[in-house]
Amino acid sequence: MISVVILGAGNVGTHMSRAIFEAKNLKLIQWFNKTPIPNFTDYWGVNFNSDLDQIPEADLYIIAVSDGAIENLSERLPFSDRLVVHTSGSLSMRFLNNKNRRGVFYPLQTFSKTSELSFDQVPICIEANDKKDRALLKSVAEALGCPTYMISSEQRQTLHLAAVFVNNFTNQMYRLAHELTDEKSLDFELLKPLILETAKKVQTLSPYMAQTGPAKRNDKKTLKKHLKLLQEHPKIQDIYKILSESIRKTHG
Amino acid sequence: MISVVILGAGNVGTHMSRAIFEAKNLKLIQWFNKTPIPNFTDYWGVNFNSDLDQIPEADLYIIAVSDGAIENLSERLPFSDRLVVHTSGSLSMRFLNNKNRRGVFYPLQTFSKTSELSFDQVPICIEANDKKDRALLKSVAEALGCPTYMISSEQRQTLHLAAVFVNNFTNQMYRLAHELTDEKSLDFELLKPLILETAKKVQTLSPYMAQTGPAKRNDKKTLKKHLKLLQEHPKIQDIYKILSESIRKTHG
Repeated sequence: MISVVILGAGNVGTHMSRAIFEAKNLKLIQWFNKTPIPNFTDYWGVNFNSDLDQIPEADLYIIAVSDGAIENLSERLPFSDRLVVHTSGSLSMRFLNNKNRRGVFYPLQTFSKTSELSFDQVPICIEANDKKDRALLKSVAEALGCPTYMISSEQRQTLHLAAVFVNNFTNQMYRLAHELTDEKSLDFELLKPLILETAKKVQTLSPYMAQTGPAKRNDKKTLKKHLKLLQEHPKIQDIYKILSESIRKTHG
Repeated sequence: MISVVILGAGNVGTHMSRAIFEAKNLKLIQWFNKTPIPNFTDYWGVNFNSDLDQIPEADLYIIAVSDGAIENLSERLPFSDRLVVHTSGSLSMRFLNNKNRRGVFYPLQTFSKTSELSFDQVPICIEANDKKDRALLKSVAEALGCPTYMISSEQRQTLHLAAVFVNNFTNQMYRLAHELTDEKSLDFELLKPLILETAKKVQTLSPYMAQTGPAKRNDKKTLKKHLKLLQEHPKIQDIYKILSESIRKTHG
């Protein structure tokens, strides 16, 4: 049984605490947050603590706080020579204080407190200097049902950047479509099967092979018509232009 | 039993022929294409024809050819006063020759010959002047298991534009992520659960509510780091800037 303390109660900390709490072979022995969690009684009777001096000994400490708070929190931990990891996509492992053994346990997924997500199938990117520590982190991920990848800090930064494209920027495409359909009293519901199918398609085809549409075909008539439809939205029009040009470059 | 002739053997024509062929209460009495279909013996013993003069009488003719070919094909049909529809997202119903009763039967989905897709759940956008014709088109869509929406030509154009954002532009986000990960020898597989979850999230949350990430938080440190990572890709860097700015505007 691997004992784990989670530090942080944001989106990642909350989903991870729950997953570890429920996993066989893992024991969430404490969930730390500097301020008590609102509606804490909802949280499955886990041992909650907001005093750093009360953190118990554990096999693994997972710091799941915002990037800006990781360095300071890792410095203030009142113990040493234990395994401490962060869950950030963009920060190097070296942001953790070196009084403890360091590592990274980055779940490559989007988390919202309001959205249910099963933690299995979330790829976990692992980094640690020590071979035993890497093995322990791999065991924890596997106990959660997650595929694991050994990823360097440099690679992880690129991965985090790529995640911004497929998650935040993609979601902004949905948002712009929502604005356009709302304006014509069209139900956004209409676009949902297409959104899902677009994501499903690249599970088996490469994005290159999956591409269709006027920009790929260089169908100038349709491109012109779309730009005209956007003439009262110059900023969305600019986005239309730059992305059509990018598709044309990929397929031209 | 509603009898249907499909004209065209592109992505839409092929998927639609198969779905109509397999549907109860619908009879695909002919599949027309100006040139014979390669490997036609694969096509489930349907009555295939490439001679316009051999098109039989039917309740409905669905023209599923490229936008540029619709007007001409509808002119050359050797009959009149029958119901003829096209499947285009961007063309007005008026592109069909008025010797026949006209309509639109636009499936709002992405189709590839290489990708299996079940036709039910595909929203069908219907337009027709005649009430009876609208009812017939609705019956056909329902026999395919599809939700139906009555959509004007003007609304349909906006819908098609919105579809470019959630499908072609989103797919280009996947493509750019693929380029970035390839360059660092990272497996694109890693991003697939995130791609799927991003699409699933907006099935129940609005894109506005679903958004996360550095641009939404206006996390300047991460934005700067990402732009630096893209310094050798000025075109991708421009896309990063314009989309981060768009997110900032939405959530600012």
